[in-house]
Amino acid sequence: MAVITVVGAGMMGSALCVPLVDRGHEVRLVGTPLDREIIARLAEDHHHLTLRYDLPRAIRPFQVDSLAGALEGADAVALGVSSPGVRWAAKNVGPLLRPGTPLFSITKGLEWDGERLRVLPDVLAGELPRAQRDSIAPAAIAGPCIAGELARRVLTCVVLTGRDRQSLRTIADLVRTDYYRIFLSEDVEGVETCAALKNAFAMGVAFGTGLHERMGGAHGSVAMHNYESAVMAEAIVEMMRVVELVGGRPLTAAGLAGVGDLDVTNNGGRTGRFGKWLGLGLPLPEAIKKMEGATLECLEVLAVMRDAIAGLEARGVLGVHELPLLREMARVALDGKSLEMPFDAFFGGEHT
Amino acid sequence: MAVITVVGAGMMGSALCVPLVDRGHEVRLVGTPLDREIIARLAEDHHHLTLRYDLPRAIRPFQVDSLAGALEGADAVALGVSSPGVRWAAKNVGPLLRPGTPLFSITKGLEWDGERLRVLPDVLAGELPRAQRDSIAPAAIAGPCIAGELARRVLTCVVLTGRDRQSLRTIADLVRTDYYRIFLSEDVEGVETCAALKNAFAMGVAFGTGLHERMGGAHGSVAMHNYESAVMAEAIVEMMRVVELVGGRPLTAAGLAGVGDLDVTNNGGRTGRFGKWLGLGLPLPEAIKKMEGATLECLEVLAVMRDAIAGLEARGVLGVHELPLLREMARVALDGKSLEMPFDAFFGGEHT
Repeated sequence: MAVITVVGAGMMGSALCVPLVDRGHEVRLVGTPLDREIIARLAEDHHHLTLRYDLPRAIRPFQVDSLAGALEGADAVALGVSSPGVRWAAKNVGPLLRPGTPLFSITKGLEWDGERLRVLPDVLAGELPRAQRDSIAPAAIAGPCIAGELARRVLTCVVLTGRDRQSLRTIADLVRTDYYRIFLSEDVEGVETCAALKNAFAMGVAFGTGLHERMGGAHGSVAMHNYESAVMAEAIVEMMRVVELVGGRPLTAAGLAGVGDLDVTNNGGRTGRFGKWLGLGLPLPEAIKKMEGATLECLEVLAVMRDAIAGLEARGVLGVHELPLLREMARVALDGKSLEMPFDAFFGGEHT
Repeated sequence: MAVITVVGAGMMGSALCVPLVDRGHEVRLVGTPLDREIIARLAEDHHHLTLRYDLPRAIRPFQVDSLAGALEGADAVALGVSSPGVRWAAKNVGPLLRPGTPLFSITKGLEWDGERLRVLPDVLAGELPRAQRDSIAPAAIAGPCIAGELARRVLTCVVLTGRDRQSLRTIADLVRTDYYRIFLSEDVEGVETCAALKNAFAMGVAFGTGLHERMGGAHGSVAMHNYESAVMAEAIVEMMRVVELVGGRPLTAAGLAGVGDLDVTNNGGRTGRFGKWLGLGLPLPEAIKKMEGATLECLEVLAVMRDAIAGLEARGVLGVHELPLLREMARVALDGKSLEMPFDAFFGGEHT
């Protein structure tokens, strides 16, 4: 039994508290400045506003003002912030960590620094204060996990990735339960690249759902699954290529972090709804408006990838015919162009 | 424009006629002895009984008794028979083929000959009469294709695989349309192994749907997508391993033939319904009865794989901890044991 502090009370960070409580830990859930209402309601009656579900009473909610107290004596810390929140966490949580504290994150994202793509655990590590940076190797959790299912203790398999095997074992032993299964990977670049890209690719797969409706098909009628599954396959092929560019192991995309996480994202979640609107032919601003302010991670990662593709192409590292699906998604979802899926360029090209 | 004869008037063989007709070919569709009613109805009013859809009038239906006439002057021949039908086709169609006729098949399956796993194009080639065997390298089509969608001209990407690149090009040029996209692969072992295994794995993914209902969940409510996607990811990992054992390229499983075809099979088709019944806890005989006599390719390939696993293990080629998902599916769907998904053995093992 340990004291574990989770920073960030969004759906995923909060759902993570359930297995932690079931393992018998003292679990402290601290909201970021964006989570004030969620924490207030949790303190009132344990109901989580965005999960729309009652969480275990043993979880102790804290507002961000009590961050220092919530971190006091923490044996391990989990970060459930948004991708822009990683720098906030490094600055605000970092100095409060005892050296060597096991630290893991569930945030997804990629950054392009003008020269290379960087995964978030490395961004986080680089932003930590010196003392913590030298003693903490941030780990991360990825893989197919819909938060609402984890909160309900539905069987879930995830990947815990990091550069220090011993620290991974420590965290896994603290976190795993009979329904929350943890698999270790030292391929941080591979796992985190897949985790970031899956939101973009899930949008592309969902284009088919929208196209189907646009052509008069009703939900449940003969659909466009052939279209969607071709996009899904190309997505995994392109994921492998980006993983390679980031310096990871391409095969990682064929496992839990790639195939698994993209599949679960296709089956649940807002990215699919957004892709459907675009496939249906809604102009980009209207599709964004339909999402009522929900964070669209797919647009964040597409913007990063567009810069990265341009930069890598200029350096001759990437060919102009590579990553056709990512390029088309950027054209549609960033530039507002109408969808013309370049199937002939998929899988290395139809006419080769 | 060419004369193309399709042998086998099941859903997939018949749907294949649609792009062939659209390419302007003379298309002759010959039923096997099992397709008499389908052909009779097609001859009457072009309605296809199992596709439940009207096919183009230009398709010329033939009963099996007219096989020789239907093959006369054929520039290319496609086989749309069931996997046991491959030997029937080699014996009955083979002698009627002019030497060098481009021949391709859409049949899925694997055989275990006591020493190794063999893919169907090789079985077919081996069973052809001598003259044809020396001049014809059978090709095969695989990848994500629901027949009802192809018949409706929904965009579809498939893989055409064979050992002779020139013959692949010839067939692809005859077959491709703007909605039926053909990608070439010379990895016959890889493509055909994926095509055969996907039915078994789709059953495993669908266990989650049944379990969800068993635990009181209604369709569309918070589901067990985390469970399903973990199984999907392990399925691709195991597909790669079996492809390797058969002598193909593991990465083939990460593309159209593996990820793509498994994804489409998860989204449509009878294998999923069967897996759902088993996940729901129905005894095996009842689950089979529920399927009302539909061919269960998943059981055929599982039976082959069970023998292959035993044989390869005995030879020390396969470890006892490998392929845990395939082993569990065989236990449940062949032996009628109750489902206990061995998640801890997935992905090389949870506690490694």
